Amino acid sequence: MEFQLQIPTQIIVGKDCIGKNAALFPSFGKRAVIVKSGSAGKNGALADVVKMLERQGISYHVCDNVPPNPSPEDVAALLGYAPGFDFVVAVGGGSAMDAAKGVAVLAVNDIGAMELYNKNYEVKPLPIIAVPTTCGTGSEVTNISVLEVGDTKKSFLSPDLHPAIAFLDARYLETLPSQVAVDTALDALSHCVEGYLIHDSWATELFAERAFANFALYKAALNKRSFTKDELELMLFTATLGGIVINMAGTSAVHTLGYPLTVQKNVPHGRACALTLGEYVAFSYDAKREKIDRMCTLLKVNGVEGFKDMIGGLLPGKPEISKEELEQYTDISAQAAIRKKNAKPITKSDILNIYFASLLG
Amino acid sequence: MEFQLQIPTQIIVGKDCIGKNAALFPSFGKRAVIVKSGSAGKNGALADVVKMLERQGISYHVCDNVPPNPSPEDVAALLGYAPGFDFVVAVGGGSAMDAAKGVAVLAVNDIGAMELYNKNYEVKPLPIIAVPTTCGTGSEVTNISVLEVGDTKKSFLSPDLHPAIAFLDARYLETLPSQVAVDTALDALSHCVEGYLIHDSWATELFAERAFANFALYKAALNKRSFTKDELELMLFTATLGGIVINMAGTSAVHTLGYPLTVQKNVPHGRACALTLGEYVAFSYDAKREKIDRMCTLLKVNGVEGFKDMIGGLLPGKPEISKEELEQYTDISAQAAIRKKNAKPITKSDILNIYFASLLG
Repeated sequence: MEFQLQIPTQIIVGKDCIGKNAALFPSFGKRAVIVKSGSAGKNGALADVVKMLERQGISYHVCDNVPPNPSPEDVAALLGYAPGFDFVVAVGGGSAMDAAKGVAVLAVNDIGAMELYNKNYEVKPLPIIAVPTTCGTGSEVTNISVLEVGDTKKSFLSPDLHPAIAFLDARYLETLPSQVAVDTALDALSHCVEGYLIHDSWATELFAERAFANFALYKAALNKRSFTKDELELMLFTATLGGIVINMAGTSAVHTLGYPLTVQKNVPHGRACALTLGEYVAFSYDAKREKIDRMCTLLKVNGVEGFKDMIGGLLPGKPEISKEELEQYTDISAQAAIRKKNAKPITKSDILNIYFASLLG
Repeated sequence: MEFQLQIPTQIIVGKDCIGKNAALFPSFGKRAVIVKSGSAGKNGALADVVKMLERQGISYHVCDNVPPNPSPEDVAALLGYAPGFDFVVAVGGGSAMDAAKGVAVLAVNDIGAMELYNKNYEVKPLPIIAVPTTCGTGSEVTNISVLEVGDTKKSFLSPDLHPAIAFLDARYLETLPSQVAVDTALDALSHCVEGYLIHDSWATELFAERAFANFALYKAALNKRSFTKDELELMLFTATLGGIVINMAGTSAVHTLGYPLTVQKNVPHGRACALTLGEYVAFSYDAKREKIDRMCTLLKVNGVEGFKDMIGGLLPGKPEISKEELEQYTDISAQAAIRKKNAKPITKSDILNIYFASLLG
């Protein structure tokens, strides 16, 4: 068995955890830049951050709202090269946190937006403090940022992009539209399933299997689109477990296949992954029989068909997509999907089959 | 739910992981000090470390062997104030790693041995790279060092004492005397049980419950005192899980009660903890019924009595101790044990009862 395990991010869980840990902020400096989603203003997260920064005598600049699925150019437009800041506070879902990682680089490096993909930044990115307000991305504990580039999404990563702290306060999820909660919970599930299948290690088993057991505890709530505070808290923590999993394992073809669905058809990211996840698991079954059986047991579903049914029940129908469009998405994603680590080698025709079976059924 | 989760140490697992990751060393500097147990020379760990340092052009000083259960004075005698070193490599079990943490402080701070307990060191301790060669202590991932002081043991801790890297190569356990493997595996179990019972959080559950399930997989091998390479690897990883648990939760009265047994009667540390662990669990049962039941299920033992039987079967008899001695150990440990976090409040008479039931049965 060969693997590594580390969680560089200090994960702090609990009600009012920002306020209770305000003393941690001054060590990051005197000037913060806040990168946030539109909803951060409504769910109370931004107010908590601002109140805490003011209490600690830290000045701050609030960027414009991050648009959904931002591009590198969108990220550059948020702040651009603006030396003088000491740290970044990211408040929102995956879009805000992934944008914040770009801002952390661009704030201290006088480079173009696409040079985010060069990896070797002259100046070390600013430290990031992450406040997730959805329950999917896991970006609060990963070193990766995924942005929209052309007709798909592309990632850049650096060890310095691990957030220093992640504050998990489930109160910020209470105003989340229920379908967004479901979509992002499916993103977290997808992270765990993909990482579990492509990375054989005790470390991914540790986190992913716990996430599956957690998912089983709140899948009825996901079905009802109605959550208790405790369920929201468990969903938020489970999303972070998913982040820990992909931080070790990476993601598989499922994520790559999801990107065109998001970019071309505006399917929310988690839902886009969930749409092909069932067929990907079925495709992987002969290579990962034992693990998939264990996963289904923990999720309390009846085998691969039960897994597909569970996900199907959480999706609000399928997007309208033609055969030709799926052929086009296959062209867009095949190369990257084949290069990814997968549960077993995948071909372009496998990808087309997964798209067809998932979306034309 | 309020808790924190972070694993600052980069845990690297696998056969020949030091050799395969030699490139990580130069970033720590040019001059290493090696703190090691006597057995480090026999199990191959020291040779691997030295070979790798030489290959990387890093000079090194090898300290004398760390004695079992070292005192602060023993630690100071290993190196004392000797500025000029860049990092510490700890090779051995808990004694070597805990001594290395002292060396990391004393090498750069001109202070007396007992000033290790002052915590606020003027100069930041040297970075530590840990190579555990037993399967118990967990010190390879904790920020704490426990040394022998007077008639008991005392700990000092600092966030800077988290080892930067822990190399887990189970080959170094192959020459471990089988009873030492058992004793240290019991130390790891004790860490998980104690942390699980005194710290209610999803994070301790995550690691401790996995450790219980792992223990169930190798308890038959512990009984037979004979291990496959795979079992040794799982025992080593499980010990690190125990370290992660106590790094979040701390230890309970069980550890405190074990210290006099080690200091006065030379009972190995893990065995000393195991001796009172069963009675401590029984004492805690009414406060932590659900958790203890779940723990027993995962360990595949029949309730608290089954748990006690399992541990009893792994202990090579009980040390000869009189009633008067146990009263004396109660005097030594009661104050510290009562101050510890416990599964439920504990009194001096509870402690005496636990000692008596555990050791005079």
